[in-house]
Amino acid sequence: MSLLEGISGPRDLDALSTEQLEQLAAEIREFLIANVARTGGHLGPNLGVVELTIALHRVFDSPNDPIIFDTGHQSYVHKLLTGRQDFENLRSRGGLAGYPQRSESPHDVVESSHASSSLSWADGISRAFTRTGRSDRHVVAVVGDGALTGGMTWEALNNITDDNDRNLVIVVNDNGRSYAPTIGGMARYLNRVRTGEMYRDLESKSGRLADRLLGRVGRALYRGVRGGTRGFLSRLTNNRALYSQLDIKYLGPVDGHDVKAMVETLELARSYGAPVIVHAITEKGRGYQPARDDIADQFHAVGRIDPQTGEPVSSSSALSWTDVFAEELVAVGESRPEVIAMTAAMLRPTGLGPFAERFPDRVYDVGIAEQHAVASAAGLAYGGLHPVVALYSTFLNRAFDQVLMDVALHRAGVTFVLDRAGVTGPDGPSHHGMWDLALLHIVPTIRIAAPRDAERLREELREAVAIDDAPTVIRFPKGGVADAIPAIERLRDGVDVLARGRTEDVLIVGIGPFAQLGLDVARRLEAQGIGATVVDPRWVVPVPESIVELSARHRLVITLEDGLRVGGIGTRVRQVLREAGIDTAVDELGLPDAFLDHASREEILEDAGLTPAKIAHDVVAQVLGTRIPVARPEGARGLPTVTGPIERSRRH
Amino acid sequence: MSLLEGISGPRDLDALSTEQLEQLAAEIREFLIANVARTGGHLGPNLGVVELTIALHRVFDSPNDPIIFDTGHQSYVHKLLTGRQDFENLRSRGGLAGYPQRSESPHDVVESSHASSSLSWADGISRAFTRTGRSDRHVVAVVGDGALTGGMTWEALNNITDDNDRNLVIVVNDNGRSYAPTIGGMARYLNRVRTGEMYRDLESKSGRLADRLLGRVGRALYRGVRGGTRGFLSRLTNNRALYSQLDIKYLGPVDGHDVKAMVETLELARSYGAPVIVHAITEKGRGYQPARDDIADQFHAVGRIDPQTGEPVSSSSALSWTDVFAEELVAVGESRPEVIAMTAAMLRPTGLGPFAERFPDRVYDVGIAEQHAVASAAGLAYGGLHPVVALYSTFLNRAFDQVLMDVALHRAGVTFVLDRAGVTGPDGPSHHGMWDLALLHIVPTIRIAAPRDAERLREELREAVAIDDAPTVIRFPKGGVADAIPAIERLRDGVDVLARGRTEDVLIVGIGPFAQLGLDVARRLEAQGIGATVVDPRWVVPVPESIVELSARHRLVITLEDGLRVGGIGTRVRQVLREAGIDTAVDELGLPDAFLDHASREEILEDAGLTPAKIAHDVVAQVLGTRIPVARPEGARGLPTVTGPIERSRRH
Repeated sequence: MSLLEGISGPRDLDALSTEQLEQLAAEIREFLIANVARTGGHLGPNLGVVELTIALHRVFDSPNDPIIFDTGHQSYVHKLLTGRQDFENLRSRGGLAGYPQRSESPHDVVESSHASSSLSWADGISRAFTRTGRSDRHVVAVVGDGALTGGMTWEALNNITDDNDRNLVIVVNDNGRSYAPTIGGMARYLNRVRTGEMYRDLESKSGRLADRLLGRVGRALYRGVRGGTRGFLSRLTNNRALYSQLDIKYLGPVDGHDVKAMVETLELARSYGAPVIVHAITEKGRGYQPARDDIADQFHAVGRIDPQTGEPVSSSSALSWTDVFAEELVAVGESRPEVIAMTAAMLRPTGLGPFAERFPDRVYDVGIAEQHAVASAAGLAYGGLHPVVALYSTFLNRAFDQVLMDVALHRAGVTFVLDRAGVTGPDGPSHHGMWDLALLHIVPTIRIAAPRDAERLREELREAVAIDDAPTVIRFPKGGVADAIPAIERLRDGVDVLARGRTEDVLIVGIGPFAQLGLDVARRLEAQGIGATVVDPRWVVPVPESIVELSARHRLVITLEDGLRVGGIGTRVRQVLREAGIDTAVDELGLPDAFLDHASREEILEDAGLTPAKIAHDVVAQVLGTRIPVARPEGARGLPTVTGPIERSRRH
Repeated sequence: MSLLEGISGPRDLDALSTEQLEQLAAEIREFLIANVARTGGHLGPNLGVVELTIALHRVFDSPNDPIIFDTGHQSYVHKLLTGRQDFENLRSRGGLAGYPQRSESPHDVVESSHASSSLSWADGISRAFTRTGRSDRHVVAVVGDGALTGGMTWEALNNITDDNDRNLVIVVNDNGRSYAPTIGGMARYLNRVRTGEMYRDLESKSGRLADRLLGRVGRALYRGVRGGTRGFLSRLTNNRALYSQLDIKYLGPVDGHDVKAMVETLELARSYGAPVIVHAITEKGRGYQPARDDIADQFHAVGRIDPQTGEPVSSSSALSWTDVFAEELVAVGESRPEVIAMTAAMLRPTGLGPFAERFPDRVYDVGIAEQHAVASAAGLAYGGLHPVVALYSTFLNRAFDQVLMDVALHRAGVTFVLDRAGVTGPDGPSHHGMWDLALLHIVPTIRIAAPRDAERLREELREAVAIDDAPTVIRFPKGGVADAIPAIERLRDGVDVLARGRTEDVLIVGIGPFAQLGLDVARRLEAQGIGATVVDPRWVVPVPESIVELSARHRLVITLEDGLRVGGIGTRVRQVLREAGIDTAVDELGLPDAFLDHASREEILEDAGLTPAKIAHDVVAQVLGTRIPVARPEGARGLPTVTGPIERSRRH
């Protein structure tokens, strides 16, 4: 039996010698490579925290001492040490989640995987422990150097240092990277520490106990880590400790791959009785040559790969939405010198790589700092440029106020390109981009486009960057771009008619990739003698006038959106119809008002009833006069209904 | 003629001697006290920046050199120096805005008055200047020490220091306060600087030019400023410069009330050719004894006052919504030891003062850091406490992601108490709390209450803190609490029936203080023979079942909300009806999808058509069969309508 198989919980680590812990680390690394190669997942980050996580569970007593993983994609080792070793269906329905998930284990505390929140959680939990007579417990936050570029960590540190009477340990997992190398003055500071220059200074002031330990830690100081890319060597003039200014104890740097050093340092941190930072130097992708060779993102997240070579198993040659955006943005950049690109630590995942190669001085990576990305974009627009801010849809939630107050109120021409909008799938509730439409359409003056295929993405991006007095949004899903869906007619306000039925019974408004869903529904309706017109509004906000006119001619309007049904675009269409005195019934179909667990996109859409068969069935039932409205109640209410036969469909 | 009257623009300052600038400062102070005493406004902050603003306009060339005021309530002096000296109708319709406003002057750049965004704007604008051949221009951000507790400033500094080839001056206006004394490790650091301990250290390393100047600045070092309240004296062990770690030049501290020193320091900063921080020590309420005597908030914002004594002119004894919350929270605290209070630098304005006096160790002021407030509240809830997070409605926009991901996803029992919800009035577009309902109802599991009077505020607060597995929200407007509105019946799900008509024609759902509006509308309808039932749902999300049942019995439903009509609660009511198969027409009335300028609350509501006469008129017209729907289109569309006589009202 391997050592790993013998670990059913963290306390099984207590009996192991240092050598055995090192062996365990090797087994875990082997396990991760073999398993994640098969399922896909976050490989690089987890290979970087093997020894660190072993040391954490050896020193602290989870879950009495809660361990909070910032962002959470580096929790695989934690799962293995807390009784979860079945990685068979990782990130698939029924399998383990790719992030901490409280329903899996009491060892999981925070499952939102948006970065930079762990220090705030730790602050709250440790304050609660202190207030409720559990001040002997420790709270541990594990945060990457990349996440430290997020403003929340600053807000939290400012508070943590305000109250020193508690057991709070912040482990900075410093690999010099977020997705990409970490940016900014903070990163340069950490780099100076990492490259050893600050070591003596730290050693001399870390107190009696620390002095003794740091002799060892110092010897173990890791020297081979690649650092951030920008000019940190040019200004190594200051070598004072940043954190000391905030009145927080600081231990390190320590080699995060030296189990013994990590255990000793964490034991020291544990004994402080006050908030303390442990600065661990780690290497993303550690121990796996293909990951180390991957300079761009060190196997941050992978699909299925060959464990030996790291090569993708099925090299899908299909073009993704991201690829199309990437290509078109370069073309836009050629003809429009005022267009610049911005990203929040996700240059390549959001498709800005080619633009950065073509126009290296026209891209700003602001770090994991969506608020700053958006507000500084407003400043760039004031200065006469047109920023294209490329983010994952879910992360723009962090900057709603800046979209509203800094961009829209100031009539700034800023284009937001939101990748991974709608249901994403295996990353679970915190990564679905399902709130963007409902969230953004309430911003005055905003214009939102949802392309249905590659060509529409190209043309809508061009239309967006031509608008200089309002925020514009282009949102599209994860994955392969849809096959081209030709329009049979483009109406004068840009609405594309995709299909016309024999009669004008049902108007289907298919938003973005749901245009195809609309066509599939229409075919089924036609087969049952119900005529359906399918349109893609292209720009969904403001609602185009021809949607109003078409609605007036049909008996029922169905809106289909890959986003929250509650408060979504469908509600907006219905309000506009009501304003215009059009009384055609409207059924808004979209995602339920709930947090959706990890599963495949197809499984989730099926659960939500967003399949051609289900929708067509409901429409037919309604048009033929049964009492079932298309929008089904999520909880049956058993209320008296007053529906009648066919005229019924005209009454909403 | 006074010197002030001779200033029609910043360049008129060039001819003045230091003595004349000092005289001008005295005139401005006199002007501010006399005028703001008459109109009300932000007195303390503006008295603190008189010399600082004069020096800024003397040294920099606005608007070529844009000056960005963080938060913006300290821009009165700036207005006086840029051709705006008519303060007759400050903050009233037709008068000057209380914040920078671009429509008033090209000297105003950023008008959103949410804190901590100025560095991001400055970063963006200066990058744009550099990119577009205007690198000779300077960008100046004026930011309070309080705003530095906001994470956006950290994100921005991290970026600003990443690109040193530009003219960017950050003036830290350090008065040791935000609304209240500034909190946290950052504040302690600034305090150490302010109290002089760091002065020698700074002097010794600020370079040749700086050395010469700092001799003078040092002599002028202000020593009498009150500092933050918490233990900063206890840990004066580190005296290294925080900012130096971020590779940014630092000048100061300088006495912000010494015009000559400020001019010299800013000239030095102007000559650097790289980002530089100027640390100015100022005193809020400077030169006005009543403000200096007001320890609590130093006349941060006042109503009309006697300029001699500082006493309110008409001491309104009316209880405000805030007062009622303040009182009830103390009572809740007595019986529920797990309830703790949190605020983001606004302890007193949000009504937490009495709770803090009664339970001093059960209040956390996190600084201007809404994101941290919300995420750490989730941590407190995990630890078994029930946080009540008291904020102004508009500022919760900053923390949408944390409400969604940290609180709701984690089923944390956190109560948000949102003051100044809906139309607030004189503070203008960035202070209206009009987005909260549309924004928050899309958070799964959330429950939202809007009290109609004091007694409902008390009972809904108690109901909210009893809910431990979901976010709860209580939102109420600014100003005096409404007279008690008794219910004639409370339905089984907590909905209050406030009035019943002779017939069940129209159901009026009055949300929060709009319950009274609903009653007023109902009286007018009854006078015209139309029966109206008026209900207050109390908890508006989830939509109570009895609203559905009542809707089924009426011919028309009108929802009234003091919030955005687009995507608001009305749309939710209509969706729930549709799900339940109820086809009663619904008209959602609320605020327009636009940014609303400063004016009185009454003026704004009248513009929005939210008056009893206007609403009753539209309802009558609709019920009697004219073609005008109650929800009027914001832009007439001239579309063909298909409305008929009375049955029409049943069709939406």
